[in-house]
Amino acid sequence: MKDIHLQKLDSLISKEWQGIFNLKMAPKVYKIIKMKDKRLYAIYMTQVYHYAYYTPRSLALAGANLANEDTRLMHHFLEHALEENGHDMMAFNDLKAMGVPLKTREDMPAVLPSTEKMIAYVKHLSLSREPYRSLGYHYWIEQPYEYIEQFMHSLCEGLHLEESQFLFYKNHKRIDKKHGNDVQSILLNYCKTEQQWEAIYQVTQTTLRQFVQMIIEITEEYEKLKNGSSSQFRILNVLKPE
Amino acid sequence: MKDIHLQKLDSLISKEWQGIFNLKMAPKVYKIIKMKDKRLYAIYMTQVYHYAYYTPRSLALAGANLANEDTRLMHHFLEHALEENGHDMMAFNDLKAMGVPLKTREDMPAVLPSTEKMIAYVKHLSLSREPYRSLGYHYWIEQPYEYIEQFMHSLCEGLHLEESQFLFYKNHKRIDKKHGNDVQSILLNYCKTEQQWEAIYQVTQTTLRQFVQMIIEITEEYEKLKNGSSSQFRILNVLKPE
Amino acid sequence: MKDIHLQKLDSLISKEWQGIFNLKMAPKVYKIIKMKDKRLYAIYMTQVYHYAYYTPRSLALAGANLANEDTRLMHHFLEHALEENGHDMMAFNDLKAMGVPLKTREDMPAVLPSTEKMIAYVKHLSLSREPYRSLGYHYWIEQPYEYIEQFMHSLCEGLHLEESQFLFYKNHKRIDKKHGNDVQSILLNYCKTEQQWEAIYQVTQTTLRQFVQMIIEITEEYEKLKNGSSSQFRILNVLKPE
Amino acid sequence: MKDIHLQKLDSLISKEWQGIFNLKMAPKVYKIIKMKDKRLYAIYMTQVYHYAYYTPRSLALAGANLANEDTRLMHHFLEHALEENGHDMMAFNDLKAMGVPLKTREDMPAVLPSTEKMIAYVKHLSLSREPYRSLGYHYWIEQPYEYIEQFMHSLCEGLHLEESQFLFYKNHKRIDKKHGNDVQSILLNYCKTEQQWEAIYQVTQTTLRQFVQMIIEITEEYEKLKNGSSSQFRILNVLKPE
Repeated sequence: MKDIHLQKLDSLISKEWQGIFNLKMAPKVYKIIKMKDKRLYAIYMTQVYHYAYYTPRSLALAGANLANEDTRLMHHFLEHALEENGHDMMAFNDLKAMGVPLKTREDMPAVLPSTEKMIAYVKHLSLSREPYRSLGYHYWIEQPYEYIEQFMHSLCEGLHLEESQFLFYKNHKRIDKKHGNDVQSILLNYCKTEQQWEAIYQVTQTTLRQFVQMIIEITEEYEKLKNGSSSQFRILNVLKPE
Repeated sequence: MKDIHLQKLDSLISKEWQGIFNLKMAPKVYKIIKMKDKRLYAIYMTQVYHYAYYTPRSLALAGANLANEDTRLMHHFLEHALEENGHDMMAFNDLKAMGVPLKTREDMPAVLPSTEKMIAYVKHLSLSREPYRSLGYHYWIEQPYEYIEQFMHSLCEGLHLEESQFLFYKNHKRIDKKHGNDVQSILLNYCKTEQQWEAIYQVTQTTLRQFVQMIIEITEEYEKLKNGSSSQFRILNVLKPE
Repeated sequence: MKDIHLQKLDSLISKEWQGIFNLKMAPKVYKIIKMKDKRLYAIYMTQVYHYAYYTPRSLALAGANLANEDTRLMHHFLEHALEENGHDMMAFNDLKAMGVPLKTREDMPAVLPSTEKMIAYVKHLSLSREPYRSLGYHYWIEQPYEYIEQFMHSLCEGLHLEESQFLFYKNHKRIDKKHGNDVQSILLNYCKTEQQWEAIYQVTQTTLRQFVQMIIEITEEYEKLKNGSSSQFRILNVLKPE
Repeated sequence: MKDIHLQKLDSLISKEWQGIFNLKMAPKVYKIIKMKDKRLYAIYMTQVYHYAYYTPRSLALAGANLANEDTRLMHHFLEHALEENGHDMMAFNDLKAMGVPLKTREDMPAVLPSTEKMIAYVKHLSLSREPYRSLGYHYWIEQPYEYIEQFMHSLCEGLHLEESQFLFYKNHKRIDKKHGNDVQSILLNYCKTEQQWEAIYQVTQTTLRQFVQMIIEITEEYEKLKNGSSSQFRILNVLKPE
């Protein structure tokens, strides 16, 4: 049977995901998919690129953190950093495969404030005196499949995405199963006190809610792009449905 | 046939190692071994502990370095960090197996200035705008076997070391073969200009000469310990030959 | 006449502050003040302590940032760091003067997630390739007086705060006038392109909205404390009105 | 009367300086001065440029160090960082005033290994758990006048240096008197145990000896430049005596 702390963590995550699918903009998202406008998905992928750029780096900083002398936790951070390395380029290539004219990293549209806040927060946890807390983020972000599987299916079908255009998602699904198990093991191994578990719950909730902010901001940017008032994502207009 | 830059690198390393074995204190070291005094080896292992503590951390910092966007170089740093993780505890356990009463990391004698300068220099390279330069250090320090094999044999024989007392060396020998090849590949893959190779030669020479300083300082500390004027390595006196 | 970019910045800040005073929880705050319950103000001061702890450190990191070679910007960061040093202890002492039994930093209630996100974001900007962006935060947080003067007056009157209990605010008011001017000068000196000003506007807005999150979370924590379900701020219950 | 620890520190520094003036290359240096060859001084100034570039940054990192919660020590680091800011450009301008065709920082000849080791070591101390140790470096490097006054006089006279060509030295002499006193005060205020003073002595000795390495390497580079085998300092050949 599952550990009681993991159970509590899972139910917390489940509740937050439900909140995400109940957001008042959710129907709008489905409508956009129905209209076969790939630009919303593309804006999302630009932000995935940005946070995926930092993921292995923050994990490496957590691994290098002198405040941690637990060899097993350090091993987890370093192994995970290694496995996440280069995934920014998966997002880059998905966008390219969709037809976005990206040549170098400089062509990538900028990071949005809510994405940058997520990056900043995870990096801060990694550099802090308690880098283990960052596990509260890695735990849910690497096994969202239970919650988003159906949505991703609708998305791919709806937008007629070819496999080469959602490799980031597809490859991650494979890799993240292992990660999910790894994070579970290290959480159970490392967290010995209620206070530590409370810190994990808090980070999980804080980052999931930050993720909601990202989704909202991405949708707002899509509206701006659609009505012509956005300049920073203009490069994605090649994907505009006829 | 070997690449011309690697050849030059190897001959530079070979020359520096010859210099090490021709140091005027070399005969003294052999004499100490003959006297079956394990304390010199033990002081050396305390310093190995300290730099091995930083090795995976510096590699992780090089991996996290935002100035590097070469995914392959980043992969090398992270993989290598992972492989070097925990080796400080190998040195710790070798000392324990010899009979040094170490319980926690706090019991370990302090880092010596020349060791700390080595640690600082490698860390600085890892954090700098050109983290690839640190490869000039990792290249030689992870494949010294050609040069020290015979010496290590004399040492183990002379001091009657049991296998459990030189696991750091033994395990590294196995692992480092792979590392050595990895560093060769990444050097050939990454270094495209003469200037980059010059930077590698310079770091190789600088760190090998810093290693000489470490050896000299360790020998001086042994003399102090022997004549009773050292306090910081006192814990090693349990190894004093009768 | 004021520079057009600063004008735009000021009107953006003004609009966000209006939003803050129009928050639906604003009347509730005034009611709490009327009830002479100092605990809301005290929770706020614990969070001031936490971000004030990081302010000079983030400024110092911005000053140390190798990506910046503009001596004048570096001067600004370092001078400002120096001037903000120790202000965490002002907040600490205000709480003590109110009667909160704080002996050491360890007694201070923990940082809240929204405060920690603010700290993380400012630190991230300071460590990033464009540390000048952090000016978008320092600009408004150091000259809020125009907007909060009246509120602070009501607060002090309402809660019968003695001078020794709001020294953080009082001393800052004096110091921050200078800072405000300094940040204006450095902004005008450093920002040469529209893109740079856009980055400043974005950071200003992002951090002001994060500040709103902090205020909301602090009010929620007050409610928890009042109804007895908070454990982390229990130490503030000495301030409970009879 | 001077504190006993400062006395010991001063006598240690005095002894190391004597060693510097007794180096076997010392007469050679005087001979170069006599030959009115400014290139040795110029190579030295290129290295001053490099370490002066890092001095305020390392001090700022020490100030930002989360392991230090002593407000007074933090104040010292930040104030000192502020005062040292921009001194790299003094060295830059001294070289320019001598006629070296430097336009941007990119034109500056590269850092030498021994200089980079010094930079790395001081930075490592600043980032370590005991940043106060870096005071052992700042103490002597900022008040060398007692020891080098006479030498600098010979140098200026011998090379017919105009005032605009040794402003780094001249301005520092004025500023550093204050710094010297500041470092004394903070050392006396902060160091409470013999162990801390021992750490200071060790850093002082280690950095002074590293300084000797710098001097030796600079002289070697001068020889290479003179006999035409140096490429990295070629830009200084405009100073070659006729």
